[in-house]
Amino acid sequence: MDGCPAGLSISEKEIQADLDRRIPRGTGVVSSRIEPDKVEILSGLLEGHTTGAPICMIVWNKDVDDTAYLDNRYKPRPGHANFTSSQRYGGYQDYRGGGIFSGRSTVSFVSAGAVARSLLRRSGIEVLAHAIEIGGVRSDSTTSLDEIRRFTYENAVRCANLSVAGRMETVILEAAAQGDSVGGVVEGIALSVPSGVGEPLYDSLDADLAKLLFDIPAVKGVEFGAGFESARMKGSSSNDEYVVRSGEIETSTNNAGGVAGGLSTGQPLRVRVAFKPTPSIAKLQKTVDLRVIKEDYIEVKGRHDPCVVPKAVPIVEAVISIVLVDHLIRAGKIPKVLGRKDND
Amino acid sequence: MDGCPAGLSISEKEIQADLDRRIPRGTGVVSSRIEPDKVEILSGLLEGHTTGAPICMIVWNKDVDDTAYLDNRYKPRPGHANFTSSQRYGGYQDYRGGGIFSGRSTVSFVSAGAVARSLLRRSGIEVLAHAIEIGGVRSDSTTSLDEIRRFTYENAVRCANLSVAGRMETVILEAAAQGDSVGGVVEGIALSVPSGVGEPLYDSLDADLAKLLFDIPAVKGVEFGAGFESARMKGSSSNDEYVVRSGEIETSTNNAGGVAGGLSTGQPLRVRVAFKPTPSIAKLQKTVDLRVIKEDYIEVKGRHDPCVVPKAVPIVEAVISIVLVDHLIRAGKIPKVLGRKDND
Amino acid sequence: MDGCPAGLSISEKEIQADLDRRIPRGTGVVSSRIEPDKVEILSGLLEGHTTGAPICMIVWNKDVDDTAYLDNRYKPRPGHANFTSSQRYGGYQDYRGGGIFSGRSTVSFVSAGAVARSLLRRSGIEVLAHAIEIGGVRSDSTTSLDEIRRFTYENAVRCANLSVAGRMETVILEAAAQGDSVGGVVEGIALSVPSGVGEPLYDSLDADLAKLLFDIPAVKGVEFGAGFESARMKGSSSNDEYVVRSGEIETSTNNAGGVAGGLSTGQPLRVRVAFKPTPSIAKLQKTVDLRVIKEDYIEVKGRHDPCVVPKAVPIVEAVISIVLVDHLIRAGKIPKVLGRKDND
Amino acid sequence: MDGCPAGLSISEKEIQADLDRRIPRGTGVVSSRIEPDKVEILSGLLEGHTTGAPICMIVWNKDVDDTAYLDNRYKPRPGHANFTSSQRYGGYQDYRGGGIFSGRSTVSFVSAGAVARSLLRRSGIEVLAHAIEIGGVRSDSTTSLDEIRRFTYENAVRCANLSVAGRMETVILEAAAQGDSVGGVVEGIALSVPSGVGEPLYDSLDADLAKLLFDIPAVKGVEFGAGFESARMKGSSSNDEYVVRSGEIETSTNNAGGVAGGLSTGQPLRVRVAFKPTPSIAKLQKTVDLRVIKEDYIEVKGRHDPCVVPKAVPIVEAVISIVLVDHLIRAGKIPKVLGRKDND
Repeated sequence: MDGCPAGLSISEKEIQADLDRRIPRGTGVVSSRIEPDKVEILSGLLEGHTTGAPICMIVWNKDVDDTAYLDNRYKPRPGHANFTSSQRYGGYQDYRGGGIFSGRSTVSFVSAGAVARSLLRRSGIEVLAHAIEIGGVRSDSTTSLDEIRRFTYENAVRCANLSVAGRMETVILEAAAQGDSVGGVVEGIALSVPSGVGEPLYDSLDADLAKLLFDIPAVKGVEFGAGFESARMKGSSSNDEYVVRSGEIETSTNNAGGVAGGLSTGQPLRVRVAFKPTPSIAKLQKTVDLRVIKEDYIEVKGRHDPCVVPKAVPIVEAVISIVLVDHLIRAGKIPKVLGRKDND
Repeated sequence: MDGCPAGLSISEKEIQADLDRRIPRGTGVVSSRIEPDKVEILSGLLEGHTTGAPICMIVWNKDVDDTAYLDNRYKPRPGHANFTSSQRYGGYQDYRGGGIFSGRSTVSFVSAGAVARSLLRRSGIEVLAHAIEIGGVRSDSTTSLDEIRRFTYENAVRCANLSVAGRMETVILEAAAQGDSVGGVVEGIALSVPSGVGEPLYDSLDADLAKLLFDIPAVKGVEFGAGFESARMKGSSSNDEYVVRSGEIETSTNNAGGVAGGLSTGQPLRVRVAFKPTPSIAKLQKTVDLRVIKEDYIEVKGRHDPCVVPKAVPIVEAVISIVLVDHLIRAGKIPKVLGRKDND
Repeated sequence: MDGCPAGLSISEKEIQADLDRRIPRGTGVVSSRIEPDKVEILSGLLEGHTTGAPICMIVWNKDVDDTAYLDNRYKPRPGHANFTSSQRYGGYQDYRGGGIFSGRSTVSFVSAGAVARSLLRRSGIEVLAHAIEIGGVRSDSTTSLDEIRRFTYENAVRCANLSVAGRMETVILEAAAQGDSVGGVVEGIALSVPSGVGEPLYDSLDADLAKLLFDIPAVKGVEFGAGFESARMKGSSSNDEYVVRSGEIETSTNNAGGVAGGLSTGQPLRVRVAFKPTPSIAKLQKTVDLRVIKEDYIEVKGRHDPCVVPKAVPIVEAVISIVLVDHLIRAGKIPKVLGRKDND
Repeated sequence: MDGCPAGLSISEKEIQADLDRRIPRGTGVVSSRIEPDKVEILSGLLEGHTTGAPICMIVWNKDVDDTAYLDNRYKPRPGHANFTSSQRYGGYQDYRGGGIFSGRSTVSFVSAGAVARSLLRRSGIEVLAHAIEIGGVRSDSTTSLDEIRRFTYENAVRCANLSVAGRMETVILEAAAQGDSVGGVVEGIALSVPSGVGEPLYDSLDADLAKLLFDIPAVKGVEFGAGFESARMKGSSSNDEYVVRSGEIETSTNNAGGVAGGLSTGQPLRVRVAFKPTPSIAKLQKTVDLRVIKEDYIEVKGRHDPCVVPKAVPIVEAVISIVLVDHLIRAGKIPKVLGRKDND
């Protein structure tokens, strides 16, 4: 992680806490694989503060079991990157569990995101995420920010509406029992982002957020504010009118989702991210044998989550945090050094 | 436009043809402003071929009328970038008609896109776009590629289904009559993209496409293949199974929309882009006076399109073409020099 | 020119003044070609201030005479980029006068440099350059800053030591009379750069300066402070010891040339740039005919400067200014908006 | 290390061999610190070939002794980055031994360089470096390529002229005995680079080489070919005339040092890099106490090399190799995948 300002007080414990949030333990909604995900900081920290040098963090893969992958080395798993990466890397790519395409790579997002979230907190900016839809079960839009803060990580599916959360869990477990999987939608929110942050035309805030969100495995759609629904609105209802509240300029609605002209509006940033179902399923699927270009069948073994959404919630939080911090530094809203050491 | 391979045969006429497609003349669906949009190539071309140097193209703004903007200089237009850009640029931004935030800036996308499309054609890659939804009127998904090729630019709204196109035009004209506006959805398609193109993890093909698509003004959502709908599917139906057809590896479905793991699959690239309604509407709207931070009203004058979608269709084509060409060059699939001059 | 803060007061006149300094009129040390070099600002400026949008400046080539180049289209001029660019661009490159490799391209450096210099002046930073060696005639190192400010542009060769300047001019005119050319060395100086500016490891201040300086045509060497001479020093004399002067930490010497560890030291930045002799000479030279790969001869016609150094002095100033401004913006030492318009 | 093509056969042993060349064991010319510098490859390799994913290599710092640095924590060492980095990072930087400014950071260059050199060898390109000057003792320019290949690493100072090497070693040991240090010059050479490689105007080959070379600690000057000497030449002797030899276009001289117009000429690349004397010396030096802004004295303890040049030779080789590989990939001269795994 490069570009972190010097002087940030951060600890492995704080980063570990974010990593631990990835995995809803003691439930069947995620894989039974025991991943301790213990983060070690190798560089960039001295006496509890960032030095301004790159922060190198490492999470060792301890519980590796390749055998499940060996069987299907030349049979690309449908919905996975095996085929495309074989085309890109000439067959040299790491075929075991997805390699860089593995969901494991999101550990990096969450680790860097923990540092970014710490920087944002110093600036009074809060980033939240929660599951709003899983396997067709939707949470209604009345969930309050307070509920999101309190309940999201209190249940296995990371949905802030607890009654809906129960139904989502049921849908996941039913799919798992059938050897199948489900997808869903995560909403990310950022509060108290100052207005005017972004670098149009070509490094717009929404464009950069979308880019990194699409780098999360399994993401198939990204929309801000009213998003695709705004395509069905009239301008007179879609436009967010300006009002003055307590002496501050705000908008009466937030169909923009906090970004207009590639710049933050000062209103809450709201982005929804669509995740497809986990491609690894136990059912028999058609594939081809790459060596002989012949149709074949595959049963994907290994230990897989029947839904990626619960783990994706902290990843969306992390990705939003990383992009915001980068833009706030570019905008000069987060300084490159946090105080002087002597005064710390 | 930098990075164009040397040796491409291109002419102002060819670029002009693409620019001309932006504006459906003789209809009421776009503004009555006469924009001739005449492109001149200032550099990068010699004796009909690109030299490998940056291509500088210019389109002069001839029909400028600032008076409509002067009235509302300190009253940000709802749904526009006036407020956010004022926050970003301290009041120094060009307040007339949006400046760099103007829809006029998309002339650059189309001009560069024309060069990119020419490069893609040489490689046998075809990029298409068409309006699939305007003001709530949707085209069904049965439109064939051939219909898209033949009918998209034969009607004012750029919808390949002519009966739907008529209804879309009606919806636009009705909104315009009410001083209002509508949004819509454009589908972009790229055919014959070779598999394995993209630079994961952080320059994924879909991530880069999404980034530049969100740089188009008024875009609020981007989804690939089944997109948000895939969040409601089971893995067993969402996964694209591999099959062999005429000796080639293909997928039986294309829910991925032609991209998996950030790499092209070799199947048609399909991306849908949501556009909000034109924010400039004739109706009276609430705003604030920035000088005194007091609520006020605004009537947006000027000459505006009641729907951005018709003009957005060639822009989506252009943006997809630009991103694809960049990635094909990085992948070594388009060479940096097209032949030797002597043999041309 | 992208990235210029909004709110800078700048005018075409100011930029023109810098452009005019490129050409020592009324002397024989530069080509007799009449280049008016009139700059027009096309965008990025409103009511006398930068808007924060990209600044597009244009200088039209008015006095073009290609005939001199046509004769030798397939015979690369020794010392020029004709051969290498033909290899790079497959013969499609602009063979007339060097195209992008022409010394004319340095007009861009000077135009952007004028804007950068204006930004630096606001921050109290002064950038100077002067010729310290031409055709073997060296200025001694005792020239004061005040002499550089006063005399550099008061003579045709841009040397601040007027007696040396006369001898330099003689050397240039003698070489010209023989159909030959000479090279030289330019020293660039930046005063009052705050300490700690730079982005090590990979965007070090000296590294970025060197990179852009080597992008100036004809540059063959760059050294900071004692430079190559420091290779012959002992550590005890090369090290700059720290002292306190008027309460400020300074160094007693400046062998570092104002940069240590890739960061500015706060002492004057001093960089020397070696320029080779103008490659265009009237003498008969050996070359090859590219069409038949056969040895041949060439006489380079056209209107050429017998020494590039006089024109290079303001270019070195410009390049240093551009790199410094970029780094000062990254360091947060120059804000992204200069005040608020209302208060301007 | 990102961007390495897939399919390169590489091993830790090969990289280790390059790392081992950094340290001339059993002599007094480098520090007595025992740095085993054992490289481990953590990712990017599978079954002996690169996968196309980033290659993560790690070299643990085992023999750390901070005590020498603690004494002088607030007293910047003359000639070091302590003061500038304290200004840049607000006092939070790693004050022990230089942190990222340590010569140890060059282990990264050599590790990545080993991979780059392996790629270049596959393309028939050879990169060499050798010491041509140390402490005022110069090797004459008649050293042949064959001598450089055979003798450079056969002596402690990395000079290919063995009689000169002996005198260089003496100069280093004499300086060390006096508690002092010396500098020197390294020449880097690249053979069989194809012509036309580089990305002018702004990513010129020489500009990019200079940039990364200046990122090596202690570098104060970089020159190509005749370099600063070319400033004293006439155009008629400086220009490299084209000739035909064995049917190939070559130049009769190589004053350009293998690069013209920012593009490789096809002739040997020749660059000279000036290194200042090691700033860590045992002699008493003036400095300031940063806490009270008062003059003070410092004796730099710790284990330091009396000359950086012997270690710098493989670093210059590595840096040249890295830049060349990046440009050859951009130029399409090194493919992004080396063959297909099945055929390997």
